[in-house]
Amino acid sequence: MDGVLEILRDFPYQDIGFAKIDHHRPLRKGFPEVVLGKGKTPEQISEIVAALSGRGNPVLVTKTGTEAFDAVRQQSPTAQFNQLAGTIVVPTDIPAKTAPRLLQGVTVVTAGTADLAVAEEAAITAELMGSQVSRINDVGVAGLHRLLDVVPDLREARVLVVVAGMDAALASVVGGLVPAPVFAVPTSQGYGSSFEGMAALLSMLNSCSPGVAVVNIDNGFGAGYMAAQINQMGRSAED
Amino acid sequence: MDGVLEILRDFPYQDIGFAKIDHHRPLRKGFPEVVLGKGKTPEQISEIVAALSGRGNPVLVTKTGTEAFDAVRQQSPTAQFNQLAGTIVVPTDIPAKTAPRLLQGVTVVTAGTADLAVAEEAAITAELMGSQVSRINDVGVAGLHRLLDVVPDLREARVLVVVAGMDAALASVVGGLVPAPVFAVPTSQGYGSSFEGMAALLSMLNSCSPGVAVVNIDNGFGAGYMAAQINQMGRSAED
Amino acid sequence: MDGVLEILRDFPYQDIGFAKIDHHRPLRKGFPEVVLGKGKTPEQISEIVAALSGRGNPVLVTKTGTEAFDAVRQQSPTAQFNQLAGTIVVPTDIPAKTAPRLLQGVTVVTAGTADLAVAEEAAITAELMGSQVSRINDVGVAGLHRLLDVVPDLREARVLVVVAGMDAALASVVGGLVPAPVFAVPTSQGYGSSFEGMAALLSMLNSCSPGVAVVNIDNGFGAGYMAAQINQMGRSAED
Amino acid sequence: MDGVLEILRDFPYQDIGFAKIDHHRPLRKGFPEVVLGKGKTPEQISEIVAALSGRGNPVLVTKTGTEAFDAVRQQSPTAQFNQLAGTIVVPTDIPAKTAPRLLQGVTVVTAGTADLAVAEEAAITAELMGSQVSRINDVGVAGLHRLLDVVPDLREARVLVVVAGMDAALASVVGGLVPAPVFAVPTSQGYGSSFEGMAALLSMLNSCSPGVAVVNIDNGFGAGYMAAQINQMGRSAED
Amino acid sequence: MDGVLEILRDFPYQDIGFAKIDHHRPLRKGFPEVVLGKGKTPEQISEIVAALSGRGNPVLVTKTGTEAFDAVRQQSPTAQFNQLAGTIVVPTDIPAKTAPRLLQGVTVVTAGTADLAVAEEAAITAELMGSQVSRINDVGVAGLHRLLDVVPDLREARVLVVVAGMDAALASVVGGLVPAPVFAVPTSQGYGSSFEGMAALLSMLNSCSPGVAVVNIDNGFGAGYMAAQINQMGRSAED
Amino acid sequence: MDGVLEILRDFPYQDIGFAKIDHHRPLRKGFPEVVLGKGKTPEQISEIVAALSGRGNPVLVTKTGTEAFDAVRQQSPTAQFNQLAGTIVVPTDIPAKTAPRLLQGVTVVTAGTADLAVAEEAAITAELMGSQVSRINDVGVAGLHRLLDVVPDLREARVLVVVAGMDAALASVVGGLVPAPVFAVPTSQGYGSSFEGMAALLSMLNSCSPGVAVVNIDNGFGAGYMAAQINQMGRSAED
Amino acid sequence: MDGVLEILRDFPYQDIGFAKIDHHRPLRKGFPEVVLGKGKTPEQISEIVAALSGRGNPVLVTKTGTEAFDAVRQQSPTAQFNQLAGTIVVPTDIPAKTAPRLLQGVTVVTAGTADLAVAEEAAITAELMGSQVSRINDVGVAGLHRLLDVVPDLREARVLVVVAGMDAALASVVGGLVPAPVFAVPTSQGYGSSFEGMAALLSMLNSCSPGVAVVNIDNGFGAGYMAAQINQMGRSAED
Amino acid sequence: MDGVLEILRDFPYQDIGFAKIDHHRPLRKGFPEVVLGKGKTPEQISEIVAALSGRGNPVLVTKTGTEAFDAVRQQSPTAQFNQLAGTIVVPTDIPAKTAPRLLQGVTVVTAGTADLAVAEEAAITAELMGSQVSRINDVGVAGLHRLLDVVPDLREARVLVVVAGMDAALASVVGGLVPAPVFAVPTSQGYGSSFEGMAALLSMLNSCSPGVAVVNIDNGFGAGYMAAQINQMGRSAED
Repeated sequence: MDGVLEILRDFPYQDIGFAKIDHHRPLRKGFPEVVLGKGKTPEQISEIVAALSGRGNPVLVTKTGTEAFDAVRQQSPTAQFNQLAGTIVVPTDIPAKTAPRLLQGVTVVTAGTADLAVAEEAAITAELMGSQVSRINDVGVAGLHRLLDVVPDLREARVLVVVAGMDAALASVVGGLVPAPVFAVPTSQGYGSSFEGMAALLSMLNSCSPGVAVVNIDNGFGAGYMAAQINQMGRSAED
Repeated sequence: MDGVLEILRDFPYQDIGFAKIDHHRPLRKGFPEVVLGKGKTPEQISEIVAALSGRGNPVLVTKTGTEAFDAVRQQSPTAQFNQLAGTIVVPTDIPAKTAPRLLQGVTVVTAGTADLAVAEEAAITAELMGSQVSRINDVGVAGLHRLLDVVPDLREARVLVVVAGMDAALASVVGGLVPAPVFAVPTSQGYGSSFEGMAALLSMLNSCSPGVAVVNIDNGFGAGYMAAQINQMGRSAED
Repeated sequence: MDGVLEILRDFPYQDIGFAKIDHHRPLRKGFPEVVLGKGKTPEQISEIVAALSGRGNPVLVTKTGTEAFDAVRQQSPTAQFNQLAGTIVVPTDIPAKTAPRLLQGVTVVTAGTADLAVAEEAAITAELMGSQVSRINDVGVAGLHRLLDVVPDLREARVLVVVAGMDAALASVVGGLVPAPVFAVPTSQGYGSSFEGMAALLSMLNSCSPGVAVVNIDNGFGAGYMAAQINQMGRSAED
Repeated sequence: MDGVLEILRDFPYQDIGFAKIDHHRPLRKGFPEVVLGKGKTPEQISEIVAALSGRGNPVLVTKTGTEAFDAVRQQSPTAQFNQLAGTIVVPTDIPAKTAPRLLQGVTVVTAGTADLAVAEEAAITAELMGSQVSRINDVGVAGLHRLLDVVPDLREARVLVVVAGMDAALASVVGGLVPAPVFAVPTSQGYGSSFEGMAALLSMLNSCSPGVAVVNIDNGFGAGYMAAQINQMGRSAED
Repeated sequence: MDGVLEILRDFPYQDIGFAKIDHHRPLRKGFPEVVLGKGKTPEQISEIVAALSGRGNPVLVTKTGTEAFDAVRQQSPTAQFNQLAGTIVVPTDIPAKTAPRLLQGVTVVTAGTADLAVAEEAAITAELMGSQVSRINDVGVAGLHRLLDVVPDLREARVLVVVAGMDAALASVVGGLVPAPVFAVPTSQGYGSSFEGMAALLSMLNSCSPGVAVVNIDNGFGAGYMAAQINQMGRSAED
Repeated sequence: MDGVLEILRDFPYQDIGFAKIDHHRPLRKGFPEVVLGKGKTPEQISEIVAALSGRGNPVLVTKTGTEAFDAVRQQSPTAQFNQLAGTIVVPTDIPAKTAPRLLQGVTVVTAGTADLAVAEEAAITAELMGSQVSRINDVGVAGLHRLLDVVPDLREARVLVVVAGMDAALASVVGGLVPAPVFAVPTSQGYGSSFEGMAALLSMLNSCSPGVAVVNIDNGFGAGYMAAQINQMGRSAED
Repeated sequence: MDGVLEILRDFPYQDIGFAKIDHHRPLRKGFPEVVLGKGKTPEQISEIVAALSGRGNPVLVTKTGTEAFDAVRQQSPTAQFNQLAGTIVVPTDIPAKTAPRLLQGVTVVTAGTADLAVAEEAAITAELMGSQVSRINDVGVAGLHRLLDVVPDLREARVLVVVAGMDAALASVVGGLVPAPVFAVPTSQGYGSSFEGMAALLSMLNSCSPGVAVVNIDNGFGAGYMAAQINQMGRSAED
Repeated sequence: MDGVLEILRDFPYQDIGFAKIDHHRPLRKGFPEVVLGKGKTPEQISEIVAALSGRGNPVLVTKTGTEAFDAVRQQSPTAQFNQLAGTIVVPTDIPAKTAPRLLQGVTVVTAGTADLAVAEEAAITAELMGSQVSRINDVGVAGLHRLLDVVPDLREARVLVVVAGMDAALASVVGGLVPAPVFAVPTSQGYGSSFEGMAALLSMLNSCSPGVAVVNIDNGFGAGYMAAQINQMGRSAED
């Protein structure tokens, strides 16, 4: 039990009443707490962002909108809003020279135009975590030649994020072509028996290709996080 | 209403108590009634087969087993059992010379070895209905080169049946590569969140490729039937 | 592998950043890429339509609305909007004399008034693909005499599209009456345990009539596409 | 509250430890308690049957098998077992002359051979409750002429029970043709996306015909009970 | 087949393009076609109502709103709108003296205030079909004494409609107390795991009391229809 | 039966037409009837509240909004609205000196900020029922040190309410750490495969820790009710 | 953090390779670890039981069978098997005089005979934890007078466990009649749309009575545990 | 397209009729094809294994049993069977000196004894792919001190596999404590509303901790594969 004490004893967090800000997460997980905007009021988001920012880490809010951005911007004037991805980013206040160079290796792939928003959430997350992101769009398997044309690019990636709705067949096809791990993100796009992403989720979970793991429907953040996390493994600054 | 009377007036059927044998179906649908073995006792199957056979058409029983075959064989000694497909066939008693030549054009494709039984049900059905069937096995998208190697064969088909479980991605990929209509058969193969074929079914219903329609899980018969039906359209004997 | 190379080598597509326009699809599938409007912004739709049009093929956008139409119309002034079907069509710019005569043979049937929108999507699709479409409306099985009255018309079709919600019993009844293949489209109409079309979908997948295949809920396009595709099989211009 | 006291005060029941036999039900509901065999041991069934029988009413056990029958028979030698329906009946010990004549008016209809067991459970129940039952078998809508041939018989019924699995389209079609109330029993027959009767259940609940109500999957007893109950309404002995 | 011809030959219906008005239904089913407002435009509803009305029968539109009422009223000035039930009624134009006296015997029971709208749809339907309706409200089983207090009233009914959401326990409890048939209507009321009425639907389908049948979620019309239909059985005008 | 008569005979309730106010519930259940606002109109809520208030008990309305509050306030000027919890409270009109002191012992715990509304509904309920409530917020297991820091507080509680959405892991973790009973409330927070709280509900029902029971999704009232009910067991005023 | 250290530091457990025996649980939760037999081999069960027993606490294995009992008995000769409940108990080796007297207050109620096994699991658990258990069987709401007859007994309980399958209406009815907390256990009994207990589970979660919480399907142990846990609150030995 | 040609041109595979052995996969994916035993006959498994083995790579069969092992052993005498994991391994025939040293870094964690089989499948897979595996068993969150005790071990891992059924809370808790990526495997263990692993799957997909991705229910192979794949990233032989 002593081991865990060393680890857990001095974990800092900040209690702001309705929330406990986990300032220790950068040490424990390698990336600060991210704010899921959905289910929180603009005022709550703004307060949490204020508590998190100004400590040498960027702050990320996901699944949010313009109303929350307006609230955040008042306390954090450097905040940036990405309409497509539904994200707010408050950049780090640390001078650029101390920021590490982005590591190449993460590729985010979409099956169709309707998957772009979730893919952008993944890409923004990975970039904030230090990875340079290649984006390959609209290579769904209905036009396989579009996908085959980018196979060399796909095979160069160290980690892939594949974003697809409906039949989500892209995840299995990419999984069969590349040696890198694939993080599959089902999207809620489609209609009828797509059942808000259920069809894509089940398809990806049952991928016939090995090397494919799945995150929640529309969870671009989750896939981008893992991609960047893995991309940093065994890498030194000069990679 | 007079139109329908001409059509329906003289429809023959034979009442054998627990069932009404539809002897008119060959005229109405172009193929005699097929017996779904599941849910019927061997005795019931045997009686129905006896009533259907000996009228110049073959008889087909699907989703059945050896026990039913033993019962059928006693009344219909020419009956044949296909263990893999779970089918009984009583061949037509019409001399071979009057039988039309099988029409080329139907191709049955499987994603993996576990899909063979359902695929064989489809192939047997299409053959009984007058189509010659090409079988292409184990070309699931996890090894895309195996599939690409047979694209020329796939593109020669007039109608395709694609049998796949798990992610069922093969249906969408084939659908994107061929000009012919594709009948997709989800199989109950897989485990966990395949949910007895539900994942494959939803994936196929949400195919991003046009030209793909779906039949019930494990319904090889249904897909083979439609493939043969369509293969005969606009074909004369000399095709 | 050489076979597939001949096929795939020169596949053209146009990369417009957020999408890759598949200009090869007319050769590969016999009909140009169709744009699913749902999940795309009006601007994205307008850009994709502009890239697709003007190449001798009509362009079809499905599941779309007036906002997208306004955007499309600015770049493609000949675009037409069908409010009921939710479709935009940009007609081909090829002179009418080179356009082939529409082929008779596709019949689209609805169970009730609430199924009209999906049926119209199917009909527009089939017409654009070269088939002349007969429409038979409101013949749900609750008033069977209405259906029986049109049986002669149904039996003349080469391919049928049956559009129905709720119990979707019409698909099975029609399937039992006609020799032609039936493409069943479940609609999300109904309430309560229709579960947005799930009841109709399951009913159609479990059709007791052979010769019935199913597409996604509300997928009029998919059924119209297959109907037209099959209607052209074995047909020469003079049919 | 006094009203309910008059009603409830003297309700008899017999406590046999693991069960409380409701000897009052004949007065309250017009028919004695019926024993659902499923989930009870042969010994429990035998004890409950013994407590119920010998009071001038027949006893009915449903969803049971030979093992339970062997146990029951030892205490109730007049018990009868129906293998197809899975029912045990201990006939009333009241002399036949006091038994009322069976009332015509209940018709039980099946779509296919696999629905016979559930239909027989319905018929036995209705007969025990005093109705004469007409059985019409195997008139599923895949061969509509078989059904149309019996429409005059269907229209003579005062109450109908329709038993069907898979798409269960028969319930809606019959519902549209007859003036009598229809009790629809979905069966667990079928395979794949029939999901053990779920498809049939949803189809029947969403019937486009008015005058159709639904009982649980495979609940022949429930439908037979209601049919007999309603058949007796406004009927005197001489009907 | 001659029998069905006599029945079906002269069935009248009126084709108004997007719909076929079933003027024969009063003869066949004993009540004219009812219009499900959901899924139809106000214009479609108005046209259908106009075609149905003025033939000696009242017209009923269900699941509709003020917009449709405004459209209907222009063509059918005597139309009445019931906001709570969401129904439009166009009364018969036949002089009141020829209208039969309403038959007592139908009781509509609700578990709670939130079930009132669906119950009113049931009551209006039964009244239009000739039954006088007793309404008993808010007797859910959480306060059993409220229910016990009305048991004598419940037991006087010839047919009962029980409307309940959430656990829907009221249907089983009433079913156990009365000799009359019970039509249970699950409502989509509740929250969380009521899943839009699924919980109530399943509870009612699994009622431990015999004599309970179920209609679709929120289908007050369906239950009211059957209640009135059965209430008329064996009744002459003087009842 | 005499026993129940003593109990049920004099149960009072007040019939206000669309509802029967259960004035006996304070005696029977120890707390007056609570009004579920969802599914009722502001007018209905206002009437029911007026009938319930002024009898020495506070009145509680849950799942309600400002519109209902405006209606209630006109008849019950002392009503208080809690925006976060969505509750209206009309305090008792009994002088404070006769009100019992609140009993310590109930602790309400949330996993995240988005669970606050449901937790507040639980806390308000428990407080109205006589318990003093400790609130511990935002101790979800993603930052376990935040939870471990409050373990001593958790272990002091006599009853706990744990409110969590998404994976709902907090319920199991707390359940493993404390000797007190835990009432777990799944919330509909989250997105994608949280399926409106289904994931949290199933997780809590399958808790690997004993001593955890579950209420409906978002049912803060239900958990607060049980917590207060149990907190009073074996407690006299001086606790 | 120091608080939790005091608590967690000295937690003992015993690592037997495939399992870690939690010998600290008696202190933390007030009852030793219970072994869920399902999913474990007889050998694993036997080893875990041996490690747990002989420390002054009884050992309980649930969801187990004769095979496991044979294995356990070899190492723990005092083990007792309850066939109905599917439980193994190894009694404490502490002399009876030091064992506390069982506390009255827990009542376990079943709706029907098929619920007895799960109820017995609950009762055995509560008894092992120090509560005396009253058993009331077969009082399902189909025969409400049986239930009303025992209302005085129900109202005497300090905590109730209600075990029911199918519609599970008993939980709501009991919940409305008693002041004590009710723990509802849905059972997997029933057939068809009971969906292995899903119907009962949803019904109980949506109980219209307050004071009802739910445990997993068939989880008699869970309900018995909580009942005994709560029954001990505020009780000294002389209660 | 030239790029993909270089890649795909020379892909070897071996057609054995019912299957196409993908001998190229070691180059493309870094690990040879693995055989899913479920759904294949012993004979099919034996043939496929024979075709795969003897090429310098080990062969792995998952979800298989003794019958298949007997068949495999006849052709591949060095085959080894792991009863617990349900796997067959045919070791490589390459001399041990050329085999690379196993890389430390993969840790497989289970919540309970019932998860051991799936965990062993994961561990065997990772070991075959070159990773040394640490196993930590039975640290489910019901006894959190057991988990806290191994936190230092967990934090040393480069990649983690967490195997858990029921509430699957362990995945989120571990995910919150470690900097390494976590691959979560839901198991089908549990009963009732675990719904064969659905509860665990949904819980894991909705993990509140970042850095957690999910594979199919019981898919130990999939998680072990990804863990080993990632463990090798940026590692040279001397790691």
